[in-house]
Amino acid sequence: MNLKFTEEKATQAAANRPKMKRSIIDCDIHHYTGLNVLKPYMPRQYLDLMETISGTIKPSRAPVAGGFNGGLGGRMVDSFPPGGGPAGGDLAYMQEHYLDPYNVEYGILTGEGFGMQSSGNYDYAAAICSAVNDYTIDQWLTQDSRLKGSVFIMKQDPTLSVKEIDRVGGRSDMAQVIVSNGATLPYGNRHYYPIYEACVRHNLPFTIHVGNEGAGVNGPPTGAGHGSYYIESRAARPQVMMAHLASFIFEGVFERFPTLKVVLQEAGVFWVVPYLWRLDQDWKALRVQTPWVKKKPSEYFRDHIRVTTQPIEEAPNRASFDQMLENMWAKETLMFCSDYPHWDFDSPLMALPRLNDELWDRIYYQNAAEIYNLPQRKAERKE
Amino acid sequence: MNLKFTEEKATQAAANRPKMKRSIIDCDIHHYTGLNVLKPYMPRQYLDLMETISGTIKPSRAPVAGGFNGGLGGRMVDSFPPGGGPAGGDLAYMQEHYLDPYNVEYGILTGEGFGMQSSGNYDYAAAICSAVNDYTIDQWLTQDSRLKGSVFIMKQDPTLSVKEIDRVGGRSDMAQVIVSNGATLPYGNRHYYPIYEACVRHNLPFTIHVGNEGAGVNGPPTGAGHGSYYIESRAARPQVMMAHLASFIFEGVFERFPTLKVVLQEAGVFWVVPYLWRLDQDWKALRVQTPWVKKKPSEYFRDHIRVTTQPIEEAPNRASFDQMLENMWAKETLMFCSDYPHWDFDSPLMALPRLNDELWDRIYYQNAAEIYNLPQRKAERKE
Repeated sequence: MNLKFTEEKATQAAANRPKMKRSIIDCDIHHYTGLNVLKPYMPRQYLDLMETISGTIKPSRAPVAGGFNGGLGGRMVDSFPPGGGPAGGDLAYMQEHYLDPYNVEYGILTGEGFGMQSSGNYDYAAAICSAVNDYTIDQWLTQDSRLKGSVFIMKQDPTLSVKEIDRVGGRSDMAQVIVSNGATLPYGNRHYYPIYEACVRHNLPFTIHVGNEGAGVNGPPTGAGHGSYYIESRAARPQVMMAHLASFIFEGVFERFPTLKVVLQEAGVFWVVPYLWRLDQDWKALRVQTPWVKKKPSEYFRDHIRVTTQPIEEAPNRASFDQMLENMWAKETLMFCSDYPHWDFDSPLMALPRLNDELWDRIYYQNAAEIYNLPQRKAERKE
Repeated sequence: MNLKFTEEKATQAAANRPKMKRSIIDCDIHHYTGLNVLKPYMPRQYLDLMETISGTIKPSRAPVAGGFNGGLGGRMVDSFPPGGGPAGGDLAYMQEHYLDPYNVEYGILTGEGFGMQSSGNYDYAAAICSAVNDYTIDQWLTQDSRLKGSVFIMKQDPTLSVKEIDRVGGRSDMAQVIVSNGATLPYGNRHYYPIYEACVRHNLPFTIHVGNEGAGVNGPPTGAGHGSYYIESRAARPQVMMAHLASFIFEGVFERFPTLKVVLQEAGVFWVVPYLWRLDQDWKALRVQTPWVKKKPSEYFRDHIRVTTQPIEEAPNRASFDQMLENMWAKETLMFCSDYPHWDFDSPLMALPRLNDELWDRIYYQNAAEIYNLPQRKAERKE
């Protein structure tokens, strides 16, 4: 059927409209109720949220957040390219606005839109992931050698995930495999093992980035169901990360894949400290039940997990901050990231308080250089 | 129908058994497969868990834990009354074993079996809660004036919850209202407001005790679904508590109920510290979205939340431990508890490292005396 609209067709359709003699009652007719027509009818306090904070006049995307976010549709106000188009959508502007002035020797691109990772439509999800990867290679990685990519995979069907990792994961400009924090099963589950085999085969860290908690086919974002506000959906992020971390450790993933590294992104940082104390303590008492877990949970963390900085918690004083860094072995486990161009972007100049040179260099450079296998380029870094 | 078995009936039943001529195929016949008959067929490593750790030869009760626990069926080995019966089931033995030697001036009874709080059968759940309360009053509170009770409520239907709080919550020997951590909705949700009205009316704290995460009609215990092992189900507990805490604060419960106090039990302690840093930080950036939240999240915590000690995280050194206490205002917010007679019981002599007198007295006595309105009795405490 040719669906193209023409004037001729419209006239014909009007002529063909049936004329019924007896009146009827129809019990289900959908009139348009998009948020744009609702604006004059909405309480004043929501209009700003709908127009600036949410950034788009569209129905709620997720039950928790009500579609709200921070900044301008989730983006920094000055991150939109002057030539138009979406924030983070223009390489030249990103270079001028961020990469050049902040002397970024390498930047790991993490893209956006983990939504397809919560879809029950596996083949469509896989197709979008491949498209993200091909677009990223074509428009970004081959245009600026500072940029490294993240292999987007669907994770619902590991057979398809592995296919994608094998397809593009061998490229020297791909730095990691990336998935969303939201998941139907915690990431230590053996369901995912083929993915870790592929990560290890290509020497790629497995990175969990916040997103999709409670969305799509995933369960509620917290163990007590859905919250009501965007800030609660942010509060849920470390909770979900905690579940993944416990799962990796107690399923014995790192015994089975001793070279696997896992990166935790954007769920905060210092929650790991008391959480590891708890896990160590429970492991001491209960290790008979999981004899394949041979080391203290905190040792697996130190050896296998890396955490990125943004959004790092603000401690009430420097002593507390330093204690937290020390208790998570930040010199080995913490890696800088900015979250550019999102509204809660951390400038490399402001993200952390003043650090001694050695610690600064580990966090802002060396820890990432090591796990992503990035050779030093700039002369002033070379001994 | 009289179901009582008699020899006469059995003979009659045998005589009445039909004799079919043509053979048939039946596609669904349930033979007994209780764990007791499976024992000889189970791998050796599970037998100990089934017999001692789990304590009972019965099928898994919860998908996460596989029915396992710690100690002897979850209990301290020496907590079983010499006269027989369940641990914690004999007041005289509890007095001799715990209350007397440890000089417990008041003990808040928290019972067991929050299972009915995850039932979809509301009236049955309410009936069990009333039975718990009546049994506790009859057999415990009226037998030893040191003991104070917790009003068990079902929370799925607040109308029934309020009825029970009004029925027994006015008694001077009832100290708090108690619910399980596992819930279908986080506790800040307005669904629960009639319960808080009743708590405030009777001046009773609302206490959330771990249990039931991921059980019954509740969603999965973590935002990433179900884990596999008992230790993961323990790791999920602070995650769920986090969801409740964010919900209380961002729904504005404490603005609506300014005298309400909330007690968090058995999900650990120090997770609150970096979590409050995170909430404060996000609140600063996003408060426009929840204008009814007038103070920093940490201020609501300090004013309204109390945390009990067991199982407090073991910090790697004293400095870290003290910093955590300070950063959670432990002098005001922390209250001792033992979890008697559970396997991970904390002796009052061993639960915490040596504290200065003032802090010791706040944690082991005064903070609880204040929120539970317990008058000082012992002479040596009186000035």
